[in-house]
Amino acid sequence: MPEYHTIFLVSDRTGITIEGLVRTLLTQFDTVPAERVVRPFCDDADKLEQVVAEINAAAETDMAPPLVYSSIVDPDLRARLKRSRGRVFDIFDVFLPAMSETLHLHSRERVGHAHGIGDYVDYDRRVEAVNFALSFDDGARLKGLEEADLILVGVSRSGKTPTCLYLAMQYKVLAANYPLTEDDFMQGRLPAPLRPLRPRLFGLSISPERLHQIREERRPGSSYASLAQCRREVTAAEALFRATGIPFVDSTNLSIEELAIEIMQRVGVDRPV
Amino acid sequence: MPEYHTIFLVSDRTGITIEGLVRTLLTQFDTVPAERVVRPFCDDADKLEQVVAEINAAAETDMAPPLVYSSIVDPDLRARLKRSRGRVFDIFDVFLPAMSETLHLHSRERVGHAHGIGDYVDYDRRVEAVNFALSFDDGARLKGLEEADLILVGVSRSGKTPTCLYLAMQYKVLAANYPLTEDDFMQGRLPAPLRPLRPRLFGLSISPERLHQIREERRPGSSYASLAQCRREVTAAEALFRATGIPFVDSTNLSIEELAIEIMQRVGVDRPV
Repeated sequence: MPEYHTIFLVSDRTGITIEGLVRTLLTQFDTVPAERVVRPFCDDADKLEQVVAEINAAAETDMAPPLVYSSIVDPDLRARLKRSRGRVFDIFDVFLPAMSETLHLHSRERVGHAHGIGDYVDYDRRVEAVNFALSFDDGARLKGLEEADLILVGVSRSGKTPTCLYLAMQYKVLAANYPLTEDDFMQGRLPAPLRPLRPRLFGLSISPERLHQIREERRPGSSYASLAQCRREVTAAEALFRATGIPFVDSTNLSIEELAIEIMQRVGVDRPV
Repeated sequence: MPEYHTIFLVSDRTGITIEGLVRTLLTQFDTVPAERVVRPFCDDADKLEQVVAEINAAAETDMAPPLVYSSIVDPDLRARLKRSRGRVFDIFDVFLPAMSETLHLHSRERVGHAHGIGDYVDYDRRVEAVNFALSFDDGARLKGLEEADLILVGVSRSGKTPTCLYLAMQYKVLAANYPLTEDDFMQGRLPAPLRPLRPRLFGLSISPERLHQIREERRPGSSYASLAQCRREVTAAEALFRATGIPFVDSTNLSIEELAIEIMQRVGVDRPV
């Protein structure tokens, strides 16, 4: 009988940090015979003991020790978790003593809110960035465009909108986007409102085959989605990027995160951490 | 002279995982006299040695060892990083051996792409969720609403739009939102298109003072933004939630992440990990 495991992600807040950590660790294995179970907001003894019971039950069923990753801060809750039948990895145990020692600072053992609201100023800037991305999506608005930190340009469905929203949501970047169309290609130059903003422009390209596949999903059989049309547009867009000196990236095999990080790095937009 | 430190976050991909980890660790200190420096896409010896040089320079300037958090996979690059003058914490060193041993699996030491594109199916579902959130934002569309995994309802500026976009972007949830207005309050019941979907409805409330502050930013001095109006709307919205049995949460002190996680948990929407 093949072994089976349960991996618990236990947090007193959202659990987003260990979600990322465990996802990263699991990329190092081909297939993992394991189910992941996230238990956020475990911030009192009752909730914690319920999770301990789940861990112990899984240990029984799986006939193998569950892996448990924890970002709980409270010392009593952490001690309870360690008394479970899981193999517990506590990110504070692992990293905090050395960090504390190196920085010569005492940690405060108080629930962290790494993904909490912070202060209202910070929250408001974030929501403002999301609203900016929505207002300046798909060339919907040009007035005020000069306030953008960066402006993505590319053909329809090359990935501009999700990338802008991600940049806004995660990094509070004021990101606008502008779709290149036949008109722009015929002119052979950037639309007038974009020209003075060239240092903040960044191009998205994509393979014509992938673009064709994406457009087919939306408008099957249309000339808009045809491979010939996709080829024409991508070729023209890349030619325009080169002629006007706009840096660009091929989005075909990049995730939204990878696009966002690469673009910030190349345009020189701050990545607030 | 107070001590100063530099904290390096070094990754062969986006660095998002260690960004979250370090953010979480730093919540445990009051003020950290340190600058964070993110170095993504360090995937060859040249780029890595450049970062090593930066680390060594910081060690000199700071007169204290830089902290270095790494999610690099390649063994050679990791070895080079450890020869720097930083104090290096390598998340794979720390967690992978025990995970590998417990799961009885060999790790493949290949660049991880935890935040990479995965497969196109996965990417497409994500973009589809973002497009869904955009189409069904602010009650813009009702036809097709029954496809939503969840529908947020609440007064204007209670946080519905960013929460829906976050749910879509991070968890591929099909999230719509619908703004409650005077009309709905006068009727004293849910708008007709929402009624059959009640199990998927979730309410957002907010303190009238905070709502007033947010609305003032957008429309200073308007009656829409007045505290009296905010009080009236919030009271009416909560009364409607209670009368119709819609669960709700007060968004005043919650981040977008916390709202998203709490709502998924309470509505029972899957949190894919």
